[in-house]
Amino acid sequence: MQPREAALPDDLATRFGQVRSLSEALAAPLSDADATVQSMDDASPAKWHLAHTTWFFETFILRDHVPGYRLHDPRFPFLFNSYYEAEGRRHARGRRGMVTRPTLADVKAYRGAVDAALIAALPSLDNAARGLVELGCHHEQQHQELLLTDVLHLFSENPLEPALWSPAPKIPVAVPDAIGWIDHDEGVVEIGHDGRGFAFDCEGPRHRTLLSPHSLADRTVTNGEWQQFIADGGYREPRCWLADGWAWLQREGIHAPLYWEDRDGVWTRFGLDGRRPIDPAAPVTHVSFYEADAYASWAGARLPTEAEWEAAAAAYDPRGGNQLDAASAVEPRPAEGSPAFFGDVWEWTGSAYRPYPGFAAADGAVGEYNGKFMSGQFVLRGGSCATPRGHARASYRNFFYPHQRWQFTGVRLARDR
Amino acid sequence: MQPREAALPDDLATRFGQVRSLSEALAAPLSDADATVQSMDDASPAKWHLAHTTWFFETFILRDHVPGYRLHDPRFPFLFNSYYEAEGRRHARGRRGMVTRPTLADVKAYRGAVDAALIAALPSLDNAARGLVELGCHHEQQHQELLLTDVLHLFSENPLEPALWSPAPKIPVAVPDAIGWIDHDEGVVEIGHDGRGFAFDCEGPRHRTLLSPHSLADRTVTNGEWQQFIADGGYREPRCWLADGWAWLQREGIHAPLYWEDRDGVWTRFGLDGRRPIDPAAPVTHVSFYEADAYASWAGARLPTEAEWEAAAAAYDPRGGNQLDAASAVEPRPAEGSPAFFGDVWEWTGSAYRPYPGFAAADGAVGEYNGKFMSGQFVLRGGSCATPRGHARASYRNFFYPHQRWQFTGVRLARDR
Amino acid sequence: MQPREAALPDDLATRFGQVRSLSEALAAPLSDADATVQSMDDASPAKWHLAHTTWFFETFILRDHVPGYRLHDPRFPFLFNSYYEAEGRRHARGRRGMVTRPTLADVKAYRGAVDAALIAALPSLDNAARGLVELGCHHEQQHQELLLTDVLHLFSENPLEPALWSPAPKIPVAVPDAIGWIDHDEGVVEIGHDGRGFAFDCEGPRHRTLLSPHSLADRTVTNGEWQQFIADGGYREPRCWLADGWAWLQREGIHAPLYWEDRDGVWTRFGLDGRRPIDPAAPVTHVSFYEADAYASWAGARLPTEAEWEAAAAAYDPRGGNQLDAASAVEPRPAEGSPAFFGDVWEWTGSAYRPYPGFAAADGAVGEYNGKFMSGQFVLRGGSCATPRGHARASYRNFFYPHQRWQFTGVRLARDR
Amino acid sequence: MQPREAALPDDLATRFGQVRSLSEALAAPLSDADATVQSMDDASPAKWHLAHTTWFFETFILRDHVPGYRLHDPRFPFLFNSYYEAEGRRHARGRRGMVTRPTLADVKAYRGAVDAALIAALPSLDNAARGLVELGCHHEQQHQELLLTDVLHLFSENPLEPALWSPAPKIPVAVPDAIGWIDHDEGVVEIGHDGRGFAFDCEGPRHRTLLSPHSLADRTVTNGEWQQFIADGGYREPRCWLADGWAWLQREGIHAPLYWEDRDGVWTRFGLDGRRPIDPAAPVTHVSFYEADAYASWAGARLPTEAEWEAAAAAYDPRGGNQLDAASAVEPRPAEGSPAFFGDVWEWTGSAYRPYPGFAAADGAVGEYNGKFMSGQFVLRGGSCATPRGHARASYRNFFYPHQRWQFTGVRLARDR
Repeated sequence: MQPREAALPDDLATRFGQVRSLSEALAAPLSDADATVQSMDDASPAKWHLAHTTWFFETFILRDHVPGYRLHDPRFPFLFNSYYEAEGRRHARGRRGMVTRPTLADVKAYRGAVDAALIAALPSLDNAARGLVELGCHHEQQHQELLLTDVLHLFSENPLEPALWSPAPKIPVAVPDAIGWIDHDEGVVEIGHDGRGFAFDCEGPRHRTLLSPHSLADRTVTNGEWQQFIADGGYREPRCWLADGWAWLQREGIHAPLYWEDRDGVWTRFGLDGRRPIDPAAPVTHVSFYEADAYASWAGARLPTEAEWEAAAAAYDPRGGNQLDAASAVEPRPAEGSPAFFGDVWEWTGSAYRPYPGFAAADGAVGEYNGKFMSGQFVLRGGSCATPRGHARASYRNFFYPHQRWQFTGVRLARDR
Repeated sequence: MQPREAALPDDLATRFGQVRSLSEALAAPLSDADATVQSMDDASPAKWHLAHTTWFFETFILRDHVPGYRLHDPRFPFLFNSYYEAEGRRHARGRRGMVTRPTLADVKAYRGAVDAALIAALPSLDNAARGLVELGCHHEQQHQELLLTDVLHLFSENPLEPALWSPAPKIPVAVPDAIGWIDHDEGVVEIGHDGRGFAFDCEGPRHRTLLSPHSLADRTVTNGEWQQFIADGGYREPRCWLADGWAWLQREGIHAPLYWEDRDGVWTRFGLDGRRPIDPAAPVTHVSFYEADAYASWAGARLPTEAEWEAAAAAYDPRGGNQLDAASAVEPRPAEGSPAFFGDVWEWTGSAYRPYPGFAAADGAVGEYNGKFMSGQFVLRGGSCATPRGHARASYRNFFYPHQRWQFTGVRLARDR
Repeated sequence: MQPREAALPDDLATRFGQVRSLSEALAAPLSDADATVQSMDDASPAKWHLAHTTWFFETFILRDHVPGYRLHDPRFPFLFNSYYEAEGRRHARGRRGMVTRPTLADVKAYRGAVDAALIAALPSLDNAARGLVELGCHHEQQHQELLLTDVLHLFSENPLEPALWSPAPKIPVAVPDAIGWIDHDEGVVEIGHDGRGFAFDCEGPRHRTLLSPHSLADRTVTNGEWQQFIADGGYREPRCWLADGWAWLQREGIHAPLYWEDRDGVWTRFGLDGRRPIDPAAPVTHVSFYEADAYASWAGARLPTEAEWEAAAAAYDPRGGNQLDAASAVEPRPAEGSPAFFGDVWEWTGSAYRPYPGFAAADGAVGEYNGKFMSGQFVLRGGSCATPRGHARASYRNFFYPHQRWQFTGVRLARDR
Repeated sequence: MQPREAALPDDLATRFGQVRSLSEALAAPLSDADATVQSMDDASPAKWHLAHTTWFFETFILRDHVPGYRLHDPRFPFLFNSYYEAEGRRHARGRRGMVTRPTLADVKAYRGAVDAALIAALPSLDNAARGLVELGCHHEQQHQELLLTDVLHLFSENPLEPALWSPAPKIPVAVPDAIGWIDHDEGVVEIGHDGRGFAFDCEGPRHRTLLSPHSLADRTVTNGEWQQFIADGGYREPRCWLADGWAWLQREGIHAPLYWEDRDGVWTRFGLDGRRPIDPAAPVTHVSFYEADAYASWAGARLPTEAEWEAAAAAYDPRGGNQLDAASAVEPRPAEGSPAFFGDVWEWTGSAYRPYPGFAAADGAVGEYNGKFMSGQFVLRGGSCATPRGHARASYRNFFYPHQRWQFTGVRLARDR
């Protein structure tokens, strides 16, 4: 991470408190068991998210920067370190759901103790440590989104299909117009974070790159359009698919977006508000890169590169759109007119997640934050309905493997000119 | 099952109440999460055991024999049917741990409702239905044992190694004398259940069989003896092992009984009272058939056949020995002199679990209780420290696959004469 | 093995020569590639069979009993030891098909050299060594059968479905009459090998056992009867299946015997003479224990125990029936009237393969011949169309895992009286 | 593919003949079995390569462009289509080694027949068809390299480690000097194929791209340097590794390049000339992308992008260096002074294999040639000692998955300035 300007202590305390509170609000409807079970290797228990984010503050700030601090529980680092090799041995990722004790209540107590110690320590922290607090807040926001998508996956594995929240009131919205296209000529642009405000290390350095002539869609693909893809045999014939994608589809029996089910001829989806009919006007979500790429081919288009996306999105407000504000029903919503680059769904790009020219990971354990994941994954841009508002930026690079689709992922088309 | 004589209604109500109460006492120290997580495919969540045993009473007695009974929750049969194909589709065994809702409290309410309905219905039930109640009680006792062994496995997967119960007070006991041998000449004996009192269908028909001349050990193998086997390279060289066992050992990296760990040169074991040094005088437990067979070969002996075992055990009190009486620390204890065939550890026999001459499974779903498992498994005899007292009999046939060892399984030696 | 009386040198030389020649005749139609490829872990390349049987003679007779003998190639023991742990490290079973060199011609040269050395040494061998030669001949006969079934499996994996041999002339035979039943009362019988002539160690000791009243079918189940089982939903519903069998069926998509395919509404089978319509009058073959057991349940019967089978078969000529005489078309043929217990198909029994009372494996490497496989497998009796005539006996115990079906395996019914 | 200018018929006939002859020369030392066995899913049998390349000519030229042509064998397309979905169903890739018939001799006859038909047809083919002949020649050259690397893998699985060819005479060469660096300033360059002469479709369109300031090493990493990496714990600690790479290393037990073994303290490698000590002066080969990337991190450098590489390599002769000229010993050789960008080893780049701006796959089956593989793989540049001379170009894009290392793959370092 590259926290070039740390916030003042007071603002930081406020921000820290807000971030920490939102996590607890999101977890509030969860039982001890809801918060403990791990539904797949890719997902983590909600309790683990609550504890791991706390471990991050305890380790990199309290332990490393507060003289005399004693660990809340010396057995916790083994349990709650995620993947930092430099921090030593740790619990196997796929066994996180075995930890029924400490309980959810114990973890909440852990959070309380670390919060108190950190608030107490904040005034005396130096700039570097305050930068790490800010990093920890952004880190926790990432886990807020994962907590929601992981609970969604867990609940989807329960044959009773429970709802986390009651559904949002449904305001009928017109199906959006045909896609409009935003044109861009060949030219050198600057992308990457410019160092003003917080960014993760992988967003920099800011650098020049050359864009080819292209057009970007002014909105993402809708559920209604995706239904046409299905009806046209999109999942039944290999023509539009990458070879890896087609093999994945056959191996896994994929025939629709994740959480979609045909119930007596009606396409439904499972969400944090339970199972409901799909809304044809809303952006499609829970599609993999492979599906996104196949759809784009079918539509005679392609996915944007991350540079094309960032050059266009830089003109828009990253705090706008349908992002997470509070602990209540979360789902992509139909667009409302003007082009929106932020919120609703993470947009798969055609760019592999690789380092920018001049990238160097930070020293020490936090250097493992991003750089070591730079193979095999694709970049997603724009934030989703489950991304805490204020977390996303034009330069933000999210990344997942091409088969993964339990995040709120969607598709914006692009084409060459 | 073959419930040849059903108990009188009053006795049955008492027995029903006692069995149901013990399950709840065993589950009392468990949190919602403890009771929900599934630690491996072979094990089930405690909550599932509590619900499945209830489903058994609800389905085969209330639904089938009580006019007008309405299911407590029509979604539960799908969740809590174990393996009865005749009862329709059901939740995949390996996904039982995904069901965070219904909660533990919901399941306890389910138990309460079914208990009340069954107690109310008991006076009007006919003999066949009363027989099913009795079957249900024995069925629940089986699940009490599984509940304990499954919780033990779950807790063993938690790096913090929590204890369910505090340890029993430790009374030092002398290491037992060398094994004594109980001789038996060639001769025809009768084995199998004689129809007086309850028995599972696989225990019959009672029939004659011919025993060859042999001797049985007067006690089971101890931890101390097992340490000698280890020290002599028992797990390091293939000479004494069945080929399947040696392949299993190499694939799984087996080098000691399950739950044993060498901590700074001291062999310890994990139990329901946490991790403690092994007691050399106590029976070894948590060994697979493969290990039991290899040990016997190493010791110049063999495992008993189930007929040899039953012929000898018939003279002993099946309610004696170290069996489960209440919800408190459970572990095999050093023997105390006279030969004991019941309690402490289930004893692997060398007999494959196959039908007796004339065996026929019952009609209907309960016919799936035992017969369909008669391939690939070995018979164990005698009951363990986790078997509810009163559940075991001389004719009782327990069965597991030869690699399984999360039950309280041990070894009695035999030899040809 | 227990070679209690070794043949005289001259007879032994003749027998050795005949056995060795048949192997080469069976392999004669095979190309270098046919003889090298391994089609699955359970099967071995024909070249490996030719070499392994040679290694057996070279190791246990020439190396161990002929002073000054030098190995034909010191690298071969690593390649051609099958599973004898006492003989040291060896090539991984599943990688046998990687060995394109030595070539088939090299292996034939290896055979020639060992044959010559053994024939030369025979006159001076002591009784024990001559017993090992006899064991080696029986061992090679076992591999002759495996060579045929392994080539059949390999050819079945080739989309072109080549034939090893041209088909036998087809003599139309009437569909056999309904099964007749051979009754047996309760009584003690002796089974196991009596020590006269050769037997493998697992066939002894001869011992008394008690049979329950039962009947045995006077012939095996036919293809025509099996078609009725299929037509009646035999593979579609779980009622008649062991739980392990049903899981296997679902996992593997089993819906008919191995090598059966429905071609435009006609059931065909693949054999060493290519793909042809099934003959309804011929014994069904290439069925697993699970299928055999399910069929028996469907037919209201059960599988025989090995003791029941042996007690009945002892009255018949083990050299009779459809067994392997020469290198030419091999397949089960319709029965011809009188009860036949030998040839056509190995008959699954309901007996797990376990040691007889008093069994003790031989010392040294040959002690690994049988004993270490005594878990998880079921006994088959009677020999098949691919068993060299003279190899089978009433006491002969063949054994395979319950899911395996690439041998010529079939079904004889039994029932309790 | 984009064959923009097809060669004249005469030249094409000559070229066709030369390419076809080299394949046969490479296969000449192979036995029927050598040519038939498949050693892993990634590799194909040599016989399959010989047949598949023939199928390509037969299908896309003779069948599609020669009126009245009849297939040599109508069963072959099912066997020898590789991955063209548009050409219908085909044999499973992982089962190619099961096809012992047709034999190697049959496949050579197939080659002869198709060669004769194609030479006969060549004068009357139109430009498009001649372009496909040229494509077929380049296609066959790709398979020549694969044939060699697949045979190498097969022979490495044989415990006897046979050699395909005798070793080349060894001329001692001095260990190369320290790496020199070729600097490049920021600037727009053109990369991609310009349409003059043959190129595969993925090499175009030619387009502008912006390079950042960087330096490229003037030679590839040597075996001697790689030994230092090993000695410094390169394979023992995770610091320099991508997370996916470290997981791969742990899962597979990787501790040195493929085919390296420590024999009594001396690093040796297995090659087409058998097992020999490594040459410290020669380029390291048989390393995966993960290893290449970890090495670069360890060396304080990074891998080049494909654009950086191409911009630099465009100045060098693509026919120079150590490439395949004839069927004889093939291995990377020590560099000799001036910078070489072609031959010896394929150089991993840090660029994911993705489409260039404006890329569109060709219509029809040949459109599946490259485009559908554009996920999950990394680009390699420069050709190797096993690449037929004349096949490589500055714009040539080879691609493999990051864990694959059975090709002659190596490492050139780069760094940011």
